[in-house]
Amino acid sequence: MVVWDEEGFQGRRHEFTAECPSVLELGFETVRSLKVLSGAWVGFEHAGFQGQQYVLERGDYPGWDAWGGNTAYPAERLTSFRPVACANHRDSRLTIFEQENFLGRKGELNDDYPSLQAMGWDGTEVGSFHVQSGAWVCSQFPGYRGFQYILESDHHSGDYKHFREWGSHAHTFQVQSVRRIQQ
Amino acid sequence: MVVWDEEGFQGRRHEFTAECPSVLELGFETVRSLKVLSGAWVGFEHAGFQGQQYVLERGDYPGWDAWGGNTAYPAERLTSFRPVACANHRDSRLTIFEQENFLGRKGELNDDYPSLQAMGWDGTEVGSFHVQSGAWVCSQFPGYRGFQYILESDHHSGDYKHFREWGSHAHTFQVQSVRRIQQ
Repeated sequence: MVVWDEEGFQGRRHEFTAECPSVLELGFETVRSLKVLSGAWVGFEHAGFQGQQYVLERGDYPGWDAWGGNTAYPAERLTSFRPVACANHRDSRLTIFEQENFLGRKGELNDDYPSLQAMGWDGTEVGSFHVQSGAWVCSQFPGYRGFQYILESDHHSGDYKHFREWGSHAHTFQVQSVRRIQQ
Repeated sequence: MVVWDEEGFQGRRHEFTAECPSVLELGFETVRSLKVLSGAWVGFEHAGFQGQQYVLERGDYPGWDAWGGNTAYPAERLTSFRPVACANHRDSRLTIFEQENFLGRKGELNDDYPSLQAMGWDGTEVGSFHVQSGAWVCSQFPGYRGFQYILESDHHSGDYKHFREWGSHAHTFQVQSVRRIQQ
């Protein structure tokens, strides 16, 4: 992926092929536009992979609204980046649980679900996740809107037993849409 | 679907089972929260199905950030609503064209594509669409972010030959993600 410190692919430019824990160390004050040329990445609000998370799939992101536009309180800057490990898009499998610690009713997912309720999930919350394979992004509201959280089988052993484990900025079990991350 | 004139499902309440060209006629000043109980709907910023469009699938929308949170300049109010005609989710088919009037290179879609570039589409624009079956939502940026436009086979004859035809607020051919609407 390539990042610029001004909007519209202007200003200083830097290309990554591996994780970057802080663009500040590259002399960037912030990242204001980016292009993903291959693979899928996660961009984080703060250094060290902290704060709001944004899945970044292949394409052009000319300004903050292109990544942060899915949430009402977007991070206007991105400070750290890492590639998403998603070896297995076609065979992605995820189990969702009603309660934390993998308890309560469960649902098995292997496709994209813009509305969990439409697939028969009761309510607007998910208590915990186990990723058998692939990489997924879950979102607070239907249609992949609101805060989003990246879940990977090759990260965290695929186990996310409480919302504290699916993102440092998460403060709710509210999850209404889930989809696979496209490589 | 059910709408309320205050956030968090509070205040005046009204239930629709068919299209509503203006909530003003119901004595609502605006809609500040809603629940979709079945089917899929489109909510519009202005009366008469004008302005920004938001696809509303089954689930809870406690405030404007739940629908408008996918764009950087969201409509904080919704004024008209209609059901989406999408008889055929599993067998949805869409053709995208490089240029307006169904010209140039084309691509055939029958799945959800968070990144058109990742599926091999060259560039960040789509010139025109033909919907063979189903209902689709296309978005300005990857990951279903930015302005969104609803495309239906049972509306407009499935033909959208210029961006003026896919939404009164569209002013660009920029489309980087496309997915089926879930019934």
